[in-house]
Amino acid sequence: AVGPQHSMFKTEITPRVSETDAVGHINNNFVPVWLEAGRRKVFRIFSPNLDFDDWPIALVNVNINYTAQIYFHEDVIVRTWVDKIGTKSFTLYEEIWQSENRCADGTATYVYFNYGTQKSEPLPAATRLALQEHLKYE
Amino acid sequence: AVGPQHSMFKTEITPRVSETDAVGHINNNFVPVWLEAGRRKVFRIFSPNLDFDDWPIALVNVNINYTAQIYFHEDVIVRTWVDKIGTKSFTLYEEIWQSENRCADGTATYVYFNYGTQKSEPLPAATRLALQEHLKYE
Amino acid sequence: AVGPQHSMFKTEITPRVSETDAVGHINNNFVPVWLEAGRRKVFRIFSPNLDFDDWPIALVNVNINYTAQIYFHEDVIVRTWVDKIGTKSFTLYEEIWQSENRCADGTATYVYFNYGTQKSEPLPAATRLALQEHLKYE
Amino acid sequence: AVGPQHSMFKTEITPRVSETDAVGHINNNFVPVWLEAGRRKVFRIFSPNLDFDDWPIALVNVNINYTAQIYFHEDVIVRTWVDKIGTKSFTLYEEIWQSENRCADGTATYVYFNYGTQKSEPLPAATRLALQEHLKYE
Repeated sequence: AVGPQHSMFKTEITPRVSETDAVGHINNNFVPVWLEAGRRKVFRIFSPNLDFDDWPIALVNVNINYTAQIYFHEDVIVRTWVDKIGTKSFTLYEEIWQSENRCADGTATYVYFNYGTQKSEPLPAATRLALQEHLKYE
Repeated sequence: AVGPQHSMFKTEITPRVSETDAVGHINNNFVPVWLEAGRRKVFRIFSPNLDFDDWPIALVNVNINYTAQIYFHEDVIVRTWVDKIGTKSFTLYEEIWQSENRCADGTATYVYFNYGTQKSEPLPAATRLALQEHLKYE
Repeated sequence: AVGPQHSMFKTEITPRVSETDAVGHINNNFVPVWLEAGRRKVFRIFSPNLDFDDWPIALVNVNINYTAQIYFHEDVIVRTWVDKIGTKSFTLYEEIWQSENRCADGTATYVYFNYGTQKSEPLPAATRLALQEHLKYE
Repeated sequence: AVGPQHSMFKTEITPRVSETDAVGHINNNFVPVWLEAGRRKVFRIFSPNLDFDDWPIALVNVNINYTAQIYFHEDVIVRTWVDKIGTKSFTLYEEIWQSENRCADGTATYVYFNYGTQKSEPLPAATRLALQEHLKYE
């Protein structure tokens, strides 16, 4: 069976000076930015060419735990899984690792959304299947 | 009795072009930035001169609900209250309003933290009193 | 005659924690962000409702001098003037002041641009007049 | 002789949703952020461990030309060279390429700066040699 390590999206990020703050580490507001950067391949499931003209999802919740300071001098890895798939929504689970330390983890919940009608819609079957391939627990 | 409207911190924010995204509205990653901007007077409770050399708090969790799109053309108001006061931590509750619409709300939990020893410490009594003045529910 | 003080746009900005960096001051990358924030009323000359669907200008150059460190604890003022008006382009001149210190100054040059045809076009007469009211030197 | 292609620093950057704006492309304010990201190896010449406690340079000018729109869906390359080495300062020259298009170029001038005394100082001989290895024109 294909395990969670295989299905996970992995994104390497090099911290920027502008992402540090005067307390001396990476500012907490860049953690959601990095977590979103980790979702690029998830976005491709919904918009294969990453075209914003028919972007069909809208973020409804993020919940982030900050567990360790993140430093400027070393790259981080964002790990992204699908956590739950609902009828009209789905939730991602993500972690940020620097060296051997898990520095942050969090969830992000999106609804399948029609910006034209301003209404949520059921996830198409093909999309559900594509998301299922990246579920954290099988 | 002094009600919650009085104890609340209120911060006006003018959206910036760089805070929009190609979907056409304010990008969700600037919502935590604006919520943090709403905490400036809370930060003054901990560091009256806003001096980072002895910044005594560390963020441990944010949980944000996105309930309506935020547009570029109109100012927003961030409303900030103290939600809970624990022994070594406290939680803020905040809302972002644009015109008559509540567009986002969320909580942010901080620990009282000694960056030198890398350990959390009990909130001083005077700090607890200062936070209590801004509790959402009395 | 109406002098430059009158014609200038003035924008107050409260620094954010996420705009500081680990060197201890405001990170230099937020200076162009603040300078752009100072142009909101200039943008209204081109798009009165700040509607991006027919945004008719494109930035072609910024040139910024950093002359003093900017600190977190105090508000800054962005001063914005029109510096030059060409046939198809115009240049703004801006300054950032914190207390009695001029901390940065710079120019930003925009072309009047048709995103549909991807070509620059002559500035309309009414737009030229509106810009002239904010010229730094008359 | 070792040519400019060899001496150049090359940094790959994946655009983020939060770096787009409502006009539909990468917002111009993220261009200086990306150009700074391209300087990481230059910063290592001055602070080998990228430690901010003795960060010895301060930015004094950036001058950026925006020559083509940058799109979200494709990675960009930042190319960074040393352009000039003065007694107490140095200037970098950088380009941003997306596919076959040069989308932006610019210079960034830093002074060798003692934050303790708040004064610029002459560049050490070893630093000058290290910078010379990355000069655009030999």
